Amino acid sequence: MRVVDLIRKKRDGGELSREEILFLVLGAARQTVPDYQLAAWLMAMVCRGLTRAETAFLTEAMLNSGEVLDFSDIPGAKVDKHSTGGVGDKTSLIVAPIVAAASGSSSPVYVPMLSGRGLGHTGGTLDKLESIPGFRVNLSKQEFRSVLVACGCALGGPTPEIAPADKRLYALRDVTGTIESPGLICASIMSKKLAEGIGALVLDVKTGSGAFMKNEKDALALAKLLVETGERMGARTVALVTDMNQPLGRNVGNALEVEECLRILSGQGPADLRELSIELSAWMLLLAGCVTDLVGGKQLAEEVVATGRARDKFRQIIQEQGGDKRVVDDPACLPQARKTEVLRSERSGFVSSMACEQIGTACVILGGGREKQDDVIDPAVGIVFSKKVGDAVQAGEALCNVRYNAESRLREALDLLKASFVITENPPEQRPLILRTIGS
Amino acid sequence: MRVVDLIRKKRDGGELSREEILFLVLGAARQTVPDYQLAAWLMAMVCRGLTRAETAFLTEAMLNSGEVLDFSDIPGAKVDKHSTGGVGDKTSLIVAPIVAAASGSSSPVYVPMLSGRGLGHTGGTLDKLESIPGFRVNLSKQEFRSVLVACGCALGGPTPEIAPADKRLYALRDVTGTIESPGLICASIMSKKLAEGIGALVLDVKTGSGAFMKNEKDALALAKLLVETGERMGARTVALVTDMNQPLGRNVGNALEVEECLRILSGQGPADLRELSIELSAWMLLLAGCVTDLVGGKQLAEEVVATGRARDKFRQIIQEQGGDKRVVDDPACLPQARKTEVLRSERSGFVSSMACEQIGTACVILGGGREKQDDVIDPAVGIVFSKKVGDAVQAGEALCNVRYNAESRLREALDLLKASFVITENPPEQRPLILRTIGS
Repeated sequence: MRVVDLIRKKRDGGELSREEILFLVLGAARQTVPDYQLAAWLMAMVCRGLTRAETAFLTEAMLNSGEVLDFSDIPGAKVDKHSTGGVGDKTSLIVAPIVAAASGSSSPVYVPMLSGRGLGHTGGTLDKLESIPGFRVNLSKQEFRSVLVACGCALGGPTPEIAPADKRLYALRDVTGTIESPGLICASIMSKKLAEGIGALVLDVKTGSGAFMKNEKDALALAKLLVETGERMGARTVALVTDMNQPLGRNVGNALEVEECLRILSGQGPADLRELSIELSAWMLLLAGCVTDLVGGKQLAEEVVATGRARDKFRQIIQEQGGDKRVVDDPACLPQARKTEVLRSERSGFVSSMACEQIGTACVILGGGREKQDDVIDPAVGIVFSKKVGDAVQAGEALCNVRYNAESRLREALDLLKASFVITENPPEQRPLILRTIGS
Repeated sequence: MRVVDLIRKKRDGGELSREEILFLVLGAARQTVPDYQLAAWLMAMVCRGLTRAETAFLTEAMLNSGEVLDFSDIPGAKVDKHSTGGVGDKTSLIVAPIVAAASGSSSPVYVPMLSGRGLGHTGGTLDKLESIPGFRVNLSKQEFRSVLVACGCALGGPTPEIAPADKRLYALRDVTGTIESPGLICASIMSKKLAEGIGALVLDVKTGSGAFMKNEKDALALAKLLVETGERMGARTVALVTDMNQPLGRNVGNALEVEECLRILSGQGPADLRELSIELSAWMLLLAGCVTDLVGGKQLAEEVVATGRARDKFRQIIQEQGGDKRVVDDPACLPQARKTEVLRSERSGFVSSMACEQIGTACVILGGGREKQDDVIDPAVGIVFSKKVGDAVQAGEALCNVRYNAESRLREALDLLKASFVITENPPEQRPLILRTIGS
């Protein structure tokens, strides 16, 4: 088999076989195929598209390019949740403790969650967790297993052994304009998630101005592809398509988001974040077999929050992963920014929309994300919104509070935030948060 | 300007501007854009196609990425011929001396011909010339000019200063499955040819089983694109679309082809090779302004052959470029293979077709071409055909003679040759050699 012949076949609209895709993916993982051939192949896939079968073969080959974790010796269901990425999108820190806390002796459930870091304008679960003083996300495989057994849940970063082909291809896609392909996105997500050794997966496919999929049609197509691929690979899979035209919750920024998660786990916090977290938890519990229907899942999720068990579970996880558990009862133990600037509305009316990608970018500019790979994150900075879409606002009233440490780029962030609010005379139409559910 | 944004623009079917293409081409020439980004861009161009304007901008940028030879101080027209490549396609060695010999004091004409080496199953002018003992194709710029002034013609290889962007992109195209794009082929050919400082160019676009363009429609489209691009860049350009469904002439292999060229220059040799050589020479003379119509061009070309002036001119060129000029009068001075094997027909009938690419490959296998870049060519080996398409053949009669030195892969070459002949009961329909003429 010659690499160039496979590239040509795909270029001409042909369908690559399982064997051919495996050959290329192993070549990527083992560094035997050079970058320029992989780049040409990636572009041919973006231009010609991938068939369902090719997407499945690619996912399978990328999954098997590295190690697949095996927790089959631990009795009970293994389930996870994955989001395609958004702004203020912090549900991982809420659903993991809820599901682990809901695990019962008759139907045990485990959440072996491997997450990523912030990408572009979106935040990352690992960066948020690391804002908790001492919290370690770089667990060895043995440590990850120990935490999982002890807590029913472990929150780690991907190890080099997981899907090495995806690591190489992802880095190339970023610089060769080959990110935006449903098949490639699907294979990248699913190869990493299925390497967790899970039997069920709930996907949160974001759509809107703060998501990578700006329009709902693309998000829906991706959701269907993810579900089909997951099921084909033997994992029960459900995808929610959810709105990302404004930040989820009111806090954006690493420590600020942890603080908001703690409020949700205490039965408080903003309604949108609570609604989505409960819905996602319910689907996880349903797919794991802990409940018989979604209503039962929601009741169970709400119950573990109301009784404080979810909050206790989060405290236990923090302790097991080396973090300062005092943050749970005293969020002031989280990093705090030294300064605050209030952004006020120049006119009265209603918030009719928010340019959500710009909000994410504003947080990055404040230091809450990375512009270059080796940037160091300031965990304390971020934005707390007092107004969201649909809210009435008076001229001079606060739209948001900006928490910052460095003066240098505050103006740039404020300008972006200011421009992101659209204030109109009439209130906008209400949009649901959960747009579609695919699967089961 | 960011490279990745330009790749994405092309990927999404956009048209790149002159400035954007220049940025990428200079990045290729100056090594500031990495291979993987160039590979992704090339594949996006192959998949989405190039507009006429993009093709022109690409040609111009690649031409100007290096040096453009300037012979404007030498009074007279500068004209060249280029073929897209075939099997037994040796007209360069015939037309260059014919046109130089036809140059008159009232209308002087020069042929500054920079050629290439064999590629895939096709032969290369430089390899053929080097089968003449001592012949030097790697002339310095000054030597090239001296030979050109002395002979009216110089036969060299491309220097590193000529179109460096094409050198890098061509090497990448070969290994990334991005050869087959009319726009890229056009820019590659024309940037190198126009760097010769010529005012007119005749193109021989091959089509058929032995050509890169297997079907006539693609060849015709490429011919039109080449002519349009040449004219747009200020060179009078004509393209002939010619048949390559069987070898041109009867000899395939480097020294064997030189020998056949000498026969044509002596007024002998096969009719098809003579017809095409005279036609191409006539167009060169016409575009150079030496004659007023094509008929006059043919008469002049035939005259310089009949009077022996073309043959004398070839002798002069050989001498000027360090070669053994005795080969002109005694072809036995050319390298001779030690052994001959006759391939005989198993049945009687007519040769109805020849798989021409396989014939080229058979010659490569004998050692007449390169399978890897650093293979050393055996100039003596090759094939002499006694039967061609349309010829009647008896069972047991010779189809061709194989001239070889090494026993090792003779069988493989013979099998290919045998399989390349299709013998049928009835004679095939006759096909013209020159299918179309584009331009002027």
